[in-house]
Amino acid sequence: MNDSLQAALAVVSDSAASYADDLMEFVRIPSVSTDPEHRPDIEAAAAWVAGRLALAGVPEVRTMETPGHPVVLGRWQVDPELPTVIVYGHYDVQPPDPLELWESEPFEPELRDGKVFGRGASDDKGGVLIAIQAVEAMARAGGGDPGINVTFLIEGEEEVGSPNLPVFLDQQREILKADLAISADGGIHGVGIPSLTVGSRGLAGVQITVRGANADLHSGMYGGAVPNPLMALAKILAGMQDDQGRILVDGFHDGIPDLDAATMAAVDAIPEDERAELDHIGLKRWWGDPAYSPMARRVVRPTLEINGMWGGFQGEGIKTVLPKEAHAKVTCRLVVGQDPDAVVTALTRHVQANAPEDVEVTATPLAGKGKAYQMPLDHPVLRLAGEAMAAAYGREPFPVWTGGTVPVAEQFQSLLGTWCLYYAFGEPDNGLHAPNEFFRVGTLRTGTEATVRLLHALAQRPDDWRRVEEVA
Amino acid sequence: MNDSLQAALAVVSDSAASYADDLMEFVRIPSVSTDPEHRPDIEAAAAWVAGRLALAGVPEVRTMETPGHPVVLGRWQVDPELPTVIVYGHYDVQPPDPLELWESEPFEPELRDGKVFGRGASDDKGGVLIAIQAVEAMARAGGGDPGINVTFLIEGEEEVGSPNLPVFLDQQREILKADLAISADGGIHGVGIPSLTVGSRGLAGVQITVRGANADLHSGMYGGAVPNPLMALAKILAGMQDDQGRILVDGFHDGIPDLDAATMAAVDAIPEDERAELDHIGLKRWWGDPAYSPMARRVVRPTLEINGMWGGFQGEGIKTVLPKEAHAKVTCRLVVGQDPDAVVTALTRHVQANAPEDVEVTATPLAGKGKAYQMPLDHPVLRLAGEAMAAAYGREPFPVWTGGTVPVAEQFQSLLGTWCLYYAFGEPDNGLHAPNEFFRVGTLRTGTEATVRLLHALAQRPDDWRRVEEVA
Repeated sequence: MNDSLQAALAVVSDSAASYADDLMEFVRIPSVSTDPEHRPDIEAAAAWVAGRLALAGVPEVRTMETPGHPVVLGRWQVDPELPTVIVYGHYDVQPPDPLELWESEPFEPELRDGKVFGRGASDDKGGVLIAIQAVEAMARAGGGDPGINVTFLIEGEEEVGSPNLPVFLDQQREILKADLAISADGGIHGVGIPSLTVGSRGLAGVQITVRGANADLHSGMYGGAVPNPLMALAKILAGMQDDQGRILVDGFHDGIPDLDAATMAAVDAIPEDERAELDHIGLKRWWGDPAYSPMARRVVRPTLEINGMWGGFQGEGIKTVLPKEAHAKVTCRLVVGQDPDAVVTALTRHVQANAPEDVEVTATPLAGKGKAYQMPLDHPVLRLAGEAMAAAYGREPFPVWTGGTVPVAEQFQSLLGTWCLYYAFGEPDNGLHAPNEFFRVGTLRTGTEATVRLLHALAQRPDDWRRVEEVA
Repeated sequence: MNDSLQAALAVVSDSAASYADDLMEFVRIPSVSTDPEHRPDIEAAAAWVAGRLALAGVPEVRTMETPGHPVVLGRWQVDPELPTVIVYGHYDVQPPDPLELWESEPFEPELRDGKVFGRGASDDKGGVLIAIQAVEAMARAGGGDPGINVTFLIEGEEEVGSPNLPVFLDQQREILKADLAISADGGIHGVGIPSLTVGSRGLAGVQITVRGANADLHSGMYGGAVPNPLMALAKILAGMQDDQGRILVDGFHDGIPDLDAATMAAVDAIPEDERAELDHIGLKRWWGDPAYSPMARRVVRPTLEINGMWGGFQGEGIKTVLPKEAHAKVTCRLVVGQDPDAVVTALTRHVQANAPEDVEVTATPLAGKGKAYQMPLDHPVLRLAGEAMAAAYGREPFPVWTGGTVPVAEQFQSLLGTWCLYYAFGEPDNGLHAPNEFFRVGTLRTGTEATVRLLHALAQRPDDWRRVEEVA
């Protein structure tokens, strides 16, 4: 093993005893981003991150205002010849509700059973600290600098959809020039089971409104002679998908390449106890397009789901009303190749084309649009990351996908022209967005070690990965 | 003109000046049947009716308890050889809300512009009074009795669906033996435009519930791989009707005879300003099964309407939930020949047959089932009623239908074996169930005259109409 790596890992080993206290101090700040009353806490958390970066030795730390919450930027420019990585994370947290289900106070963190309990411990304060600790250890071991250029970009609006991040990235393009972005937000497949997230799905959706007569009517007076917006809506929606889950919206699949064999194989190799998962959600079997495996349908195939649908009388008993309007929300998870705007257009066309003539139909795009993200499975950064994780965990990681939408990776790609590597350590049982969120003290150390190993490899072997390909 | 008729009409003429005061006294009792707090007012209204019947000379007046509100029964058995008619009406009223839209207090009746304003003035206190006044006038003119056997049956639960009436009719079968029932609840086509309601539609419906997973799921984690109850519901509902309004539920139309030419002609002869009506409800044209005219679809053809539909996220913005359940209420207006239970069975079978395999679907019958009612257009009672109305209004009445459901007529038919003639005088502008309900003072007199003429004709010409046919 390389001496400098050895030295950095020794620093981690020596420092690890203080990691939990550090995390508890950070968790104590109730930086809930949804609630304007927590604005002072947002400021305090940003200041805490800035202070912690300075303490780690980061020479250039700035708290930069946005129209929303500030971004903390920490730049350590060691040498222009060295590779540059951005480390992304967030200091804001979800609201702690429902409070009554917490065993200890969400913002008075407690150490129990080797875990730090508190809101944000895992999402994402633990992740942010791990990255800072890793750079700090490398700098201490390396005689003053980490041996690689690092730009920390820690935002405060992730839990509200990062509304100001794209403009920030675009405006700060020059200062954010990098060879790679690393997301310290995310997680691994299981406790002690490392994995690397290589892709996420995009999102696009519409709210559909169907209007008939100008008032709710009496079905005894008008039934059978005026269009019923609820029936019109049912027909519009029913035509979007066949009984086996194939999406029938014209143009929806435009641009989607065939899934390659390597991806299919990797998806199907993800170890899942499907029986246990089905039992957990109360279903006998998976459902959906038989041309793809259930896991493929969940992570690398596009979806169309009705999220909500409503109109008319919803109370107890009977009311023979013929309602004047009906509503639905439909969102789609998108895969690489799909353009969210084109999908909205396809949905809107479907709605218009399938609307009965005598109702008025509108389809309004829903906020939250985003493209899918997919790192090439053979990208050399994934090989380096896999080696680093394997060394830290004593077990080879495998690629996984999130079926959800994490716009930030795609934004690094499209706005800054860098791939974004998910390199984060939260486990599925950490209670993200739920009561009794926690982060394992052991993970603080393992994650820091894994991050040290990765940054060291990136710094030492730049020719193995840098500029091997242009981002599409 | 027959002397006894002449004499009775003279009594009406002499008494008419007091009709409005009488109605205002009755309206002053806030006999709201939906509200248990008004129970004393219900009792007071029943007592008022009983007293008014006694005042009219009805020899046998009883207030009979039911599990709900009492029925006031007034029997005038003149001679077993004479025909017997039941007069049906109700003394309960709708709640007066919204109070702020009333120009005078709903239970402090006011006489303005020749109209008595107050809750229940038209529905049905005016109607009840007209029938009592008519019998009273005939008795005074006829030397002590009306010349026909009359049984008043005035209930107190019409506005809550007459839940105890069928059992009451069944239990009192013997005492209610009659040749004809006359409903004093109902109305005519327009102000000064008499009509005779010859039919009403029945009702049957189900509440549909679709269940998928045991909890709301994240569409990013499970979208495309588990059944979506909202989509399943959309497909179940969409399959119930084609785009032109034809009902596709197997077995739904069982038992419906073809519409005869006379009915079709009578339906299409109902004078309606269709343009004005469409403008009023904000539609360009009527919709529905092109094999039938819009009016036929509204009154003599069966309907299927979704009254309500709901599930998942209904708030502002986006929530990418995959809901665990979905709900809908579907009700059908039925025509003669359809059995409500059979229609519920047909709907339930459709729901089960069209449910995707992996969701759980239930269809629960909704309360309020009832059969359609149709008086034969050539029934001689209609001829006599038409002549009586024509004489009172100076204009020939025509047959009309209500597309709504009025179970009482069908119950007289099926439980007592008598046809039920709607013979009532409310006008469409009376504000039934709405603020500023009123009844015209002139209508109190015209209605009483028309009722005197009808009862007189029924008494004088029994061979023209009695037992001409058996009820099916």
